[in-house]
Amino acid sequence: MKDPRLCGLEVEGRQMRAVEGGVTAARGFKAAGVRCGVKSSGLDLALICSEAECAAAGVFTTNAFQAAPVVLSRKRLESGCAQAVVANSGNANAITGERGLRDAEEVCAAAAAELGLDPEKVVPASTGIIGVRLPVERIKAGIREAVASLSADGGPRAAEAILTTDTYAKLSAYEVEIGEKSVRVGGIAKGAGMISPNMATMLCFVTTDAAISPGLLKRMLVEAVHTTFNCLTVDGDMSTNDSVIVLANGCSGCRIDCGTEAAELFGRALSQVCLDLAKAIARDGEGATKYVEVIVDGAASAEDAKRAGMAVAKSPLVKTALFGNDPNWGRVLCAVGASGARVEPDKVSLWFGDVQIVNNGEPTQFDLDAVRSVMSCKDLQIRVDLGIGAGRAKVYTCDLSYDYVRINAEYHT
Amino acid sequence: MKDPRLCGLEVEGRQMRAVEGGVTAARGFKAAGVRCGVKSSGLDLALICSEAECAAAGVFTTNAFQAAPVVLSRKRLESGCAQAVVANSGNANAITGERGLRDAEEVCAAAAAELGLDPEKVVPASTGIIGVRLPVERIKAGIREAVASLSADGGPRAAEAILTTDTYAKLSAYEVEIGEKSVRVGGIAKGAGMISPNMATMLCFVTTDAAISPGLLKRMLVEAVHTTFNCLTVDGDMSTNDSVIVLANGCSGCRIDCGTEAAELFGRALSQVCLDLAKAIARDGEGATKYVEVIVDGAASAEDAKRAGMAVAKSPLVKTALFGNDPNWGRVLCAVGASGARVEPDKVSLWFGDVQIVNNGEPTQFDLDAVRSVMSCKDLQIRVDLGIGAGRAKVYTCDLSYDYVRINAEYHT
Repeated sequence: MKDPRLCGLEVEGRQMRAVEGGVTAARGFKAAGVRCGVKSSGLDLALICSEAECAAAGVFTTNAFQAAPVVLSRKRLESGCAQAVVANSGNANAITGERGLRDAEEVCAAAAAELGLDPEKVVPASTGIIGVRLPVERIKAGIREAVASLSADGGPRAAEAILTTDTYAKLSAYEVEIGEKSVRVGGIAKGAGMISPNMATMLCFVTTDAAISPGLLKRMLVEAVHTTFNCLTVDGDMSTNDSVIVLANGCSGCRIDCGTEAAELFGRALSQVCLDLAKAIARDGEGATKYVEVIVDGAASAEDAKRAGMAVAKSPLVKTALFGNDPNWGRVLCAVGASGARVEPDKVSLWFGDVQIVNNGEPTQFDLDAVRSVMSCKDLQIRVDLGIGAGRAKVYTCDLSYDYVRINAEYHT
Repeated sequence: MKDPRLCGLEVEGRQMRAVEGGVTAARGFKAAGVRCGVKSSGLDLALICSEAECAAAGVFTTNAFQAAPVVLSRKRLESGCAQAVVANSGNANAITGERGLRDAEEVCAAAAAELGLDPEKVVPASTGIIGVRLPVERIKAGIREAVASLSADGGPRAAEAILTTDTYAKLSAYEVEIGEKSVRVGGIAKGAGMISPNMATMLCFVTTDAAISPGLLKRMLVEAVHTTFNCLTVDGDMSTNDSVIVLANGCSGCRIDCGTEAAELFGRALSQVCLDLAKAIARDGEGATKYVEVIVDGAASAEDAKRAGMAVAKSPLVKTALFGNDPNWGRVLCAVGASGARVEPDKVSLWFGDVQIVNNGEPTQFDLDAVRSVMSCKDLQIRVDLGIGAGRAKVYTCDLSYDYVRINAEYHT
């Protein structure tokens, strides 16, 4: 598998070029990451700010318990307009009652005052422990420091500041030629545990210098998230804080209108940034030793394909077998069979990497050592063909190791 | 929590007395457990046989991939009549194609020949590795030995012979006075991994000396399973082989008719046997260090209560926190919020043991040490009150430890 970050991608005969910087790759954006003392160590406050007002859109967790910053961001993005994002790690400000909402507002107001913006133009995000009040004074002190250190190459530090149990910062950015102009789209994300579908179950901030309406931006974001973050699972737990927020400041001078080739090209770049970040989250799953793609073909519908793929990707028995290099392939079909997707057992085929294990419901005479060798790779693909339709999905996940248990048995205390 | 096995239960003013023997507690049943070499060590073949033909019923996995013995048992129980059960551990005979079905038939035919029964009266069950052909000759040799060693106190050995990764045999039996007569109901079960709802995800065999029609027996079994085995989860993985089979031979001379007090009493005993066995499976979950009951009250419906309770019980983040004695209670509400059950966040309350942590959506000033002390118990209850209705459910589960990963990373190889 080639890494698109290294080789670029050809889109419609044009080169989409990977660039550095994450959220500061696009023109007119600055960012900062500082330490304010919410986490016990490391950077824990990120600030992203545009020089001009932006079209803005977001998609959020569908959990019935929505963290205070999610409630506030959702409300503020109804206007389709924003200019800055302030995000802390170490504390989720979730299940903190009315007080939590006022805390989130106070953080945004402090950032707005330092940046000289209307508070309504600042959207918040938080990640970390649930049910504990946000240390607002520390965060306000951090905001002063972050504003002072905002810079056009601050993307990597901002990416660092939103991490919790992640082991590395996650950035992606592309430049794509549209007519005579070039547009950049870049993003940062965090997420390692409490990762499951129906919203990214993580934080992701994307910036672009395209000029685009809030309505079209929202539609294109929803589309990009559907096949990327929403096809990602680490542990099947959906967070209270998941947010993907995109800001478009128009600084490239390149206009993206609905139904044009420009929209097609911009959409590809936006999806690629989301895909890179989703894959980086799967690869950095808590305790993960392996990155795994589950591909389901031949399903009755795309929804069924995703349902079957997610069931495989969420199965603790499949995930522990992957960790143990144990060719216990029956667990994969068992998970497919329990998924609720339409399945006709005698039409199902299964591959680990290039090795076909089941053909139309019957085990083949496969070479067990070949399967073991596929399983011992750090990157592997499991493919299921349900043999009954044209539905297809690709799901991104990782294995389940001792370290997942260690990390999550000891996270709070 | 008192163990009903030790103290008995008072039902409608009458004593329901715990008795020994599992499937051989009821009169007219014999059982055996022998080693035939399917597993690498230990007993692996169980035989249960009644002296008279029985009314019989079963409930089975809803997985789209149904193991060969499930397909065959389901078909044979359509008659409502059976006399013996033959079960092996170590090999599931699942995803083994047409050949697997013929193997299951051959095993039953061998048992029928040795027992002098019509093969249609023998129902099979298997548990173990998926996708590998059953070693039929070894099992047939085992059947000869099992028939020779059938005995009226063979229940415990049969219970031993169906285990896989279980650490102890699971038996339960009760005697209940009905009129001038007494009826016994007893069962054995296995299950430690691949345990989730919508069928027991395990093997369970129940025998009784009540005289009851197959139709009523089936209805009462479905009812008992609904609130016991179907409220049980170890790892959320639904097996291809789950089977609960009940045989009623009438040897007590006590007739159970629909709508009578006798049916009420018999139903209580049947449910209690299923509940004891379901709890024993949760307590023996793979790698489990703790037994956990999740109680959901105040839900919009009983289905919603079960949905919320199962989401908590399946959450890897909740389960690892339980293992680590980590009072990270936010994960419980996060799982409730993601469950799909109707939730109004500001009406939700939460308790760990007797300690109230959340009251109407707001954290209380609870004593963290008191919560830690609840969490360090081997048996604990988590209770969520959704505050919007009268729906209630109780779900049985365990924690997720390093040993779950070890057991499942190394099961096959």
